[in-house]
Amino acid sequence: MKTAFKSFASDNNAPVHKAVLQAMLQVNEGDTVGYGDDVHTLEAEQKLKDLFGKDAKVFFMLTGTGANAASLAHITRPFHSIICSDKAHLEKDECGAPEKMTGCKLHTIPSADGKIYTEQIKPFLHSRGFQHHSQPRVISITQATELGTVYHPEEIKQIAHFANENDMYLHMDGARLANAAAALNMPMNELAGSSGVDVLSYGATKNGAMSAEAVIFFNSDLAKDFEYSRKQSMQLMSKMRYVSAQFQALHTGELWLENARRANDMARLLAEKVKGIPSVSITQKVETNAVFAILPAKAIEILQRRYFFYIWDNARNEVRWMTAYHTNEKDIEAFVEAVREAVQ
Amino acid sequence: MKTAFKSFASDNNAPVHKAVLQAMLQVNEGDTVGYGDDVHTLEAEQKLKDLFGKDAKVFFMLTGTGANAASLAHITRPFHSIICSDKAHLEKDECGAPEKMTGCKLHTIPSADGKIYTEQIKPFLHSRGFQHHSQPRVISITQATELGTVYHPEEIKQIAHFANENDMYLHMDGARLANAAAALNMPMNELAGSSGVDVLSYGATKNGAMSAEAVIFFNSDLAKDFEYSRKQSMQLMSKMRYVSAQFQALHTGELWLENARRANDMARLLAEKVKGIPSVSITQKVETNAVFAILPAKAIEILQRRYFFYIWDNARNEVRWMTAYHTNEKDIEAFVEAVREAVQ
Amino acid sequence: MKTAFKSFASDNNAPVHKAVLQAMLQVNEGDTVGYGDDVHTLEAEQKLKDLFGKDAKVFFMLTGTGANAASLAHITRPFHSIICSDKAHLEKDECGAPEKMTGCKLHTIPSADGKIYTEQIKPFLHSRGFQHHSQPRVISITQATELGTVYHPEEIKQIAHFANENDMYLHMDGARLANAAAALNMPMNELAGSSGVDVLSYGATKNGAMSAEAVIFFNSDLAKDFEYSRKQSMQLMSKMRYVSAQFQALHTGELWLENARRANDMARLLAEKVKGIPSVSITQKVETNAVFAILPAKAIEILQRRYFFYIWDNARNEVRWMTAYHTNEKDIEAFVEAVREAVQ
Amino acid sequence: MKTAFKSFASDNNAPVHKAVLQAMLQVNEGDTVGYGDDVHTLEAEQKLKDLFGKDAKVFFMLTGTGANAASLAHITRPFHSIICSDKAHLEKDECGAPEKMTGCKLHTIPSADGKIYTEQIKPFLHSRGFQHHSQPRVISITQATELGTVYHPEEIKQIAHFANENDMYLHMDGARLANAAAALNMPMNELAGSSGVDVLSYGATKNGAMSAEAVIFFNSDLAKDFEYSRKQSMQLMSKMRYVSAQFQALHTGELWLENARRANDMARLLAEKVKGIPSVSITQKVETNAVFAILPAKAIEILQRRYFFYIWDNARNEVRWMTAYHTNEKDIEAFVEAVREAVQ
Repeated sequence: MKTAFKSFASDNNAPVHKAVLQAMLQVNEGDTVGYGDDVHTLEAEQKLKDLFGKDAKVFFMLTGTGANAASLAHITRPFHSIICSDKAHLEKDECGAPEKMTGCKLHTIPSADGKIYTEQIKPFLHSRGFQHHSQPRVISITQATELGTVYHPEEIKQIAHFANENDMYLHMDGARLANAAAALNMPMNELAGSSGVDVLSYGATKNGAMSAEAVIFFNSDLAKDFEYSRKQSMQLMSKMRYVSAQFQALHTGELWLENARRANDMARLLAEKVKGIPSVSITQKVETNAVFAILPAKAIEILQRRYFFYIWDNARNEVRWMTAYHTNEKDIEAFVEAVREAVQ
Repeated sequence: MKTAFKSFASDNNAPVHKAVLQAMLQVNEGDTVGYGDDVHTLEAEQKLKDLFGKDAKVFFMLTGTGANAASLAHITRPFHSIICSDKAHLEKDECGAPEKMTGCKLHTIPSADGKIYTEQIKPFLHSRGFQHHSQPRVISITQATELGTVYHPEEIKQIAHFANENDMYLHMDGARLANAAAALNMPMNELAGSSGVDVLSYGATKNGAMSAEAVIFFNSDLAKDFEYSRKQSMQLMSKMRYVSAQFQALHTGELWLENARRANDMARLLAEKVKGIPSVSITQKVETNAVFAILPAKAIEILQRRYFFYIWDNARNEVRWMTAYHTNEKDIEAFVEAVREAVQ
Repeated sequence: MKTAFKSFASDNNAPVHKAVLQAMLQVNEGDTVGYGDDVHTLEAEQKLKDLFGKDAKVFFMLTGTGANAASLAHITRPFHSIICSDKAHLEKDECGAPEKMTGCKLHTIPSADGKIYTEQIKPFLHSRGFQHHSQPRVISITQATELGTVYHPEEIKQIAHFANENDMYLHMDGARLANAAAALNMPMNELAGSSGVDVLSYGATKNGAMSAEAVIFFNSDLAKDFEYSRKQSMQLMSKMRYVSAQFQALHTGELWLENARRANDMARLLAEKVKGIPSVSITQKVETNAVFAILPAKAIEILQRRYFFYIWDNARNEVRWMTAYHTNEKDIEAFVEAVREAVQ
Repeated sequence: MKTAFKSFASDNNAPVHKAVLQAMLQVNEGDTVGYGDDVHTLEAEQKLKDLFGKDAKVFFMLTGTGANAASLAHITRPFHSIICSDKAHLEKDECGAPEKMTGCKLHTIPSADGKIYTEQIKPFLHSRGFQHHSQPRVISITQATELGTVYHPEEIKQIAHFANENDMYLHMDGARLANAAAALNMPMNELAGSSGVDVLSYGATKNGAMSAEAVIFFNSDLAKDFEYSRKQSMQLMSKMRYVSAQFQALHTGELWLENARRANDMARLLAEKVKGIPSVSITQKVETNAVFAILPAKAIEILQRRYFFYIWDNARNEVRWMTAYHTNEKDIEAFVEAVREAVQ
């Protein structure tokens, strides 16, 4: 049982945004048809279509791992392979759900900053057409990446173009797509459907929701029959209105954007403030809401007595500090002070 | 998009109980470690251990289908078979999640009232030891059954004894275990661990929660490594405190029992009142919160204009009416009146 | 370790036909490219195309279970269901390989003679379009059936038409297709592609080969990428020429037909001869190479001391006697005599 | 359609050894019970027990990929991971069968010579106990490796010790175990069970058989129920006697050893002879029956007009030449001459 006054461990350690809870309370009136055949769900889907395009096919899910694994299973056959960064959530943090659900091989590309490039993907095409080899079918990228960096639209378009030319699909794990959009000051869809993404796992949970994930198909042929994949993947909530309400709240008046901006701003502030501290070095560009830093082992130990956060790479004494929509300047100041003390 | 003033379609059409929502609001304060490593989850697990025995191993899940499929996958190998009623939720209503997740064959037993008996299970043992045949490994029963009937403890014990003698496990789908316990006026565990159940899918969602399911192992050897199965089955919620709060609320002061009793009482009241109506006949014992009835096709059509409920068996003009924790006498009276009018 | 002078247990208890072994010896010369990229395989495929149509897509496999499970997995998604007879090999005798490989639910139809009819399939269509239910996608029939009966072309066409009208595929388990064709005195393809079968598991092993199975797609869109499914299903033989040689031998000069005819003739002879024996009754039409009979339990016991065969239904004292391509009149006479003695 | 007078592409391009075919002919007499319940299979199993220890559990299989994937699936749960070299057959050449059959993640270790070491495996243990990560369960090594190198008994023991200490199993892909044993001049079991291997995929196909693979469990607890895994993995041959006969032939009078020695000798001879040719360099130690060499692109092209072999690494102009049990000195001389000419 780990406790902490303030967690910089993950944006999912944050509470639920009050407006989200309020929306959940509001739909808690009377009977409603289950499994998504209700007016709240229709409205929430419409809000996402307003953002992601009217032809987008939207399916609400329960977990990010569920969104990734179920959507990947839907667009592959087991003899396909999925290409992703070696830092990808679906490679590292889903306990093999992608392999279990898809039956596919995952090919990973070593990535220093969480991003991958077409030049690195090309060699996997050598296995094309040989019956002994898993056939590359999906490229999966994470936006923002697991290292807090972002893909620019041109970068996404280049991968999408490559995927398209080579009979592959582009999947995006958008657990922090909002943060990327806030960082780049662009509409979310500019980084998704408009840049050629075929299927998006869009996560709202880390951005102020309780448990609200979606699979969004831009390539609508791919969406066919996904309702069955969702159910079989155990991701269909019976009292769906409470998921839908979360999406409604976050996508009314751009709350999603405010939340993401705040989280990003606080990470930037944190990075700026710790930069000056001796023996602390920042290891990744701080583009969204994560700060990766190296500091002395002893300092990490002292700091972890007061704050909860993860050691990213034991060998290098590298830690990850994440901010969230509710982090404020005082939190940052107190934390920076604690870092300063720990280092001394 | 189906709408209705009042739904008798399913207990999952009901809203969330106010005390449950209140508990969710109360935990919405500050940061908390994710994925269940928090004090709320510890307390909620303890509450279930108070009910199900201190050695019970409790894992919170997101959907009932997830609880069934993940627990069955955990206690089987793909060459095993699972024996259940032909009315079982896991056979009928989970879009093949059990097959996909376990790789096992499901053997079904025709059941008029939703219950199965050892005499019906015995013939499946003939395949034991033949390498060409899936090997029977799990008997799964539903309590209360999909037809609203209940297993008495002696019945469960008999199946558990048979399972034990034949190197099989007994799984219980307890999506409505609370209703069964209320009907029999017994502690829930009398119908689960104390009667020899090895693994229980315990559902609180239909009894006033929002999305709160659990897998409970009474055979603690079976629980080993289940945390990995849960994660790989995409059933691990990051912001777990909000699931835990639901369990806490329902298991404080026996709210779970009040809710289940109310639902059962209302079904009994409904059954009593429609019994007198000409051309309406009740087809199953009304032991919990479901009423199965046959009425003229024309009457069904008229009634469905005003109320939402499912036709159970088209061929027989049989319908299912379900009550929930929030159904009240006035709801029943109005509905009975509508039935009466529809029949005329 | 069971031994017997003469087995009536299965046509796979027979040795390999001398011409088949001879052909295997003939290809045993020098080096050959592996995995099917050799001239023997090309020629063998051509021989099957001569029988099954020039557009047929032919893939050699190693086991009948492999041919069934891999082909079904290739034409389904895990949320689909497969409809077959409750006597089907893929339901009864493949240790759950279809479920493991496809992830699909198998729906079985009670069948007295091993055959199924569209009227029995129709009710499964009620689940169409409901996200909670596995979606019917394949009808699988066995020709000749596991009970030795045969489908006439009109019967197959009717099922194929029904499948086609309802967006389903028709799969045929043709482990004994040769016997059916011999029985009906028709070309094999009259009972397969020409009658609307989409995918055929064609077995030569029971008809005089050693281990020679094939998946044949008549619907060539379905064949796309099957080479990868075959390899991933562990059915791709490295020294393929030895499988190909078997097919070559059997399909040169209609050896396949001679073999099948002989087996059928011997079963008919057996049936005729035992018919007259008191307390022996034949339970299925003897259309191909199996005789199902009921005889006194004591007689079965006595007979099994001298001959190896299976008890089909213990409860009814029903046995299955199978003949093969090499069974001769003397074998039958001796066996009938033994039956006569056992019964007395 | 590739043809060649003489193939140096793979040892599976060779014909079947005459003694093996002879043994297959010899068992082709009369009826035999199918699926391994026959005297030939019993005898063949005994021969392998003579080599691998009387407690070894032996199961005959049809393909090497089947032996690997089915045995790995049997000793893992889907949330486990399997650690192997990045050159491993199960990573590179089985079209994802391991992932499909096990549901596990494969972790690969970059290997220059095909071998892996405990120091490289250790880092994967960091994921132990975290529910988000696949749990390491099996180390799989290939003997001889895909690069023709061999593990010495001490190296195997070290990995086995490490596996044992860390609650993992050691699997060996022994498709060319005979070649390794011949190279080291040791009994095969010295490199398998006696060195701590838990499960072995033992392949005879590349050593003169037609299609004869086996899974051998040294840890007999692991063997429990494997007959069902074999059947469900579609690896159970009905006419088993013909597989058994192959094993019998190869393990009578040490034919397996003669074959392996001859193949190794010929590779060594080839390596010695090409070493002197300008612009040809050998890239791997020639310990068994493979020679890896770099030569000019133009020379490769010329040589491939006359001989069939694979380019191993296009970027480096590296080729693989394999010898087999039937390669002779004249074959080598002619080939070396051709290399010499091609290079000029």
